[in-house]
Amino acid sequence: MTDRNRLIYLPLGGAGEIGMNCYVYGYGDKGAERLIVVDTGVAFPDMDGQPGVDLILPDIDWLAERADRIEGIFITHAHEDHVGGLGHLWSRLRAPVYARAFTAIHARRKMEEVGQDPEQVRVVEAYPAVVEAGPFRVQFAPVSHSIPEAAALVIDTPGGRVVHSGDFKIDRDPVVGEAFDEEMFRDIAGRGVKAFICDSTNVFSRHPGRSESQLPEPIGKLIADARGMVVATTFASNVARLKTLADAGVAQGRSICLLGRAMKRMVTAAVEAGVLTDFPRTLSPEEATEVPRDSLMLIVTGSQGERRAASAALSRGSYLGHELKEGDLFLFSSKTIPGNEIGVARIQNALAEKGVLIVDEASGFYHVSGHANRPDIEAMHDLLRPQVVVPNHGEYRHLAEHARLALSKGMTGIVAANGSMVELSGNAPQVVEYVEVGKTYLDGSALIGAFDGVIRDRMKLALNGIVIVALIVDEEDEILEDAWVALRGLPETGAQGGDLAVMIEEELSAMLPRLGAKTIDDDDKLEEAVRRAARDVCVSEIGKKPEVSVLISRLMAE
Amino acid sequence: MTDRNRLIYLPLGGAGEIGMNCYVYGYGDKGAERLIVVDTGVAFPDMDGQPGVDLILPDIDWLAERADRIEGIFITHAHEDHVGGLGHLWSRLRAPVYARAFTAIHARRKMEEVGQDPEQVRVVEAYPAVVEAGPFRVQFAPVSHSIPEAAALVIDTPGGRVVHSGDFKIDRDPVVGEAFDEEMFRDIAGRGVKAFICDSTNVFSRHPGRSESQLPEPIGKLIADARGMVVATTFASNVARLKTLADAGVAQGRSICLLGRAMKRMVTAAVEAGVLTDFPRTLSPEEATEVPRDSLMLIVTGSQGERRAASAALSRGSYLGHELKEGDLFLFSSKTIPGNEIGVARIQNALAEKGVLIVDEASGFYHVSGHANRPDIEAMHDLLRPQVVVPNHGEYRHLAEHARLALSKGMTGIVAANGSMVELSGNAPQVVEYVEVGKTYLDGSALIGAFDGVIRDRMKLALNGIVIVALIVDEEDEILEDAWVALRGLPETGAQGGDLAVMIEEELSAMLPRLGAKTIDDDDKLEEAVRRAARDVCVSEIGKKPEVSVLISRLMAE
Repeated sequence: MTDRNRLIYLPLGGAGEIGMNCYVYGYGDKGAERLIVVDTGVAFPDMDGQPGVDLILPDIDWLAERADRIEGIFITHAHEDHVGGLGHLWSRLRAPVYARAFTAIHARRKMEEVGQDPEQVRVVEAYPAVVEAGPFRVQFAPVSHSIPEAAALVIDTPGGRVVHSGDFKIDRDPVVGEAFDEEMFRDIAGRGVKAFICDSTNVFSRHPGRSESQLPEPIGKLIADARGMVVATTFASNVARLKTLADAGVAQGRSICLLGRAMKRMVTAAVEAGVLTDFPRTLSPEEATEVPRDSLMLIVTGSQGERRAASAALSRGSYLGHELKEGDLFLFSSKTIPGNEIGVARIQNALAEKGVLIVDEASGFYHVSGHANRPDIEAMHDLLRPQVVVPNHGEYRHLAEHARLALSKGMTGIVAANGSMVELSGNAPQVVEYVEVGKTYLDGSALIGAFDGVIRDRMKLALNGIVIVALIVDEEDEILEDAWVALRGLPETGAQGGDLAVMIEEELSAMLPRLGAKTIDDDDKLEEAVRRAARDVCVSEIGKKPEVSVLISRLMAE
Repeated sequence: MTDRNRLIYLPLGGAGEIGMNCYVYGYGDKGAERLIVVDTGVAFPDMDGQPGVDLILPDIDWLAERADRIEGIFITHAHEDHVGGLGHLWSRLRAPVYARAFTAIHARRKMEEVGQDPEQVRVVEAYPAVVEAGPFRVQFAPVSHSIPEAAALVIDTPGGRVVHSGDFKIDRDPVVGEAFDEEMFRDIAGRGVKAFICDSTNVFSRHPGRSESQLPEPIGKLIADARGMVVATTFASNVARLKTLADAGVAQGRSICLLGRAMKRMVTAAVEAGVLTDFPRTLSPEEATEVPRDSLMLIVTGSQGERRAASAALSRGSYLGHELKEGDLFLFSSKTIPGNEIGVARIQNALAEKGVLIVDEASGFYHVSGHANRPDIEAMHDLLRPQVVVPNHGEYRHLAEHARLALSKGMTGIVAANGSMVELSGNAPQVVEYVEVGKTYLDGSALIGAFDGVIRDRMKLALNGIVIVALIVDEEDEILEDAWVALRGLPETGAQGGDLAVMIEEELSAMLPRLGAKTIDDDDKLEEAVRRAARDVCVSEIGKKPEVSVLISRLMAE
């Protein structure tokens, strides 16, 4: 190795937004570093920003151009925003994938779902086991989070040790899975930590985080007081919470039934991976219909208001033989993720119309976060004593606040949003380069770039509606007969009650004969003339400027 | 009056949602009641539910059909969700409008903006002054809220006294305007209250509400610690908050500049109505550019993340000569309304990228709500001791919880969502009829019904994109030449990189010649055949089923 070797960090997703985590580390000659990828997550689209899109994936063009330099892909845990993009992205990366057992089950499914080889995913043991990947030695250090077998990565290179926190909280009694292990992190810190890349989600939460073990008591009381059916929803992947809820139900003499595909899949995977050994016996939805309402507890998917999940189905009516009634209890043991408020409120209101009593996180007793709050982030800083803190897993304001926090504690804090390449080696780690990164949309089966204009066009259609005009130009460059007009997403009638499409046709009939040959000959000019005329009619009739698509059929001499 | 006289209440908007308040009271012979309208508010559309729509208005068909029975329109206060629809709806109601002075200024502007006669709005004095309107005697009882001159309505009829709370909080020191007047409400309660129609917004907030007067101290400290420019945003209509902010700035030696049209309009109206007498001198945006940054405080519009407001403009770059820099302070003295989280986060992240320090309501020190919390709602129940409580101004879950609360206190609580007609007279007030009510969208200058299909069509375009096909059928019912295809909101290329529009054209070229005369003769059948072929190509090439519009031009024999 020469002096020119460097250690770099490059976030491609997850730094400047919450979701879509994808980070690159590199070590080696400048511009020829060997690379590892940490996480290949997705984000979820919404109507406001990405109508019709199925998933948002990180833009990995930079990585794909350097695929021959990738030594491995490391998945910290099985949440969608960390593993959800693996199948879609793997064909462009083609490197071995490393994950712990529970995570690997999900990673393999992600590969299979899009026809990739699941055997590319290799199961690794936790710290102190080591994965050798080129110049990198990587260890999976167990952390507590809201899913089993979450891990921080301890990444050793000749340029120093980096700790990548992954998603974590400090929970010394997490109900399921590994408790936060302070001694292990002291051991990790012992050799000196160059850089700590750290979860910033809850940097604005100033109270210490609470433990999963604080939930059984209040949830138990709530169920004890319930007279009718009890339904609880949480993230399917929060296996500890599923157990907390199910145990609390059983303790109050209720039978447990899981509703929702994802939930059953998660419990099965947790049992298979050996992280869940004593989950109560559950009834099938059919069996559960035989149980008296006051002896039944449903644990269901859809805590975020997803329209197709079990919660939404139950709010609309009967689902798999179960229907909620006045006096039933519905517990949201979950936080509403920003952007999902309207969807959650829709379900809560529908449940309220049925007379169901709703309890949610507003009370503060029935949910704990899976991410480290500010004091817990500080505790990790203090344990690891890194030279530099690079905040990740956060919107820009989270990253900035976390960097300020590091600075206030005497460390270097570097704000590196997606595309900011940080050189961690040397005495003054800093951003050294900006890589252009966007987002990739999975739309049906197509991958489209966020800047391709497709989605912008769809949003224009949604905002403005569209007037479609068909014109025929004959062999002698004359416009044949009248234009045909159709409307989509526009009112049918104008200000005085006239038919809007007919009014546009009439305006075009009046306008087209006045056009000169130069305009008629030229598709662009002809389209522009038609567009202007159609828009003028719409502006005066409905006060709106629609999109206009003009199809010109030019007949050829035979 | 005969025995058949009855007193009815009918919410048309605002009960089952927050926003778009519009309530009807009636007294008289069943089916021939004389009517008054309370509030004519709007709600604001979003991309998720109403793309392209400008405003959401209550559906007043029921009222408009009975316009000859309307004795008056009463506006409780000048918030958009209470007065914003007046101009658009008045032409169908044509009754005198009553409001207090400050509210009347805004109500008249709403009339003028759409070409209605502002003189229809009559200024009335507060309680104990009385407006006589048919069988109704109405008094405007001042309440504290987040806008000047908010009023509850005391509505007397031969069938008893109704108190309509309007939006209110209990604030005994509201900085601007009238303090909550317990004695007045005792006086109102003295004659006995039949029904209390009451604001339910904060029924889930269990701590007592806080006073505006608690804000100056923490806000003053915050400004005292600021080194650079200070910017604060809140609702423009919250005149008390504008004064709290401006006074705090002046006390710390800063000059004040208001940015945003709505803000200047509100201050002007408040001065004009005599409710604001000692607002500090403000600088114009130009004058303010001459002031050193550490001596300046901007108070700006856009607390809800609105893209066109001053906050958003400042987050993007320079605005009217002012630009934020590292170390400046930006205070959100406001609550983010559910649904606006993403817009507010967008601005906060853009500000964070500039190095601006952001302080928002999360800390709990810099904003107080304008609505009564649960203990304050209970205090009003206790003051008025009504026979029946009908919750309004809330989503269904708020109404249900508020009715439960009333019940638990020994009163009758009736959940009446939009369209539920309640008979308040008699010994057992109850819902007696359901009126079909929807929503009306102002879309450009057109009013369209929520169920007209226009918006559903726009959402389909946004989700699926559209394939447009033009076909020519000649005089002999033969399809002429090839079909022309255009795409909007769809990727241009298919799975193997081929041109998607060309592939659809080719598929149609292969399919069309195989169609029989019966299909070609029939527009619907021909369209369906084309639609199916175009969709099949899209499903296999891009995994998506688009909308398809087919324009068939049938040439006529000359």
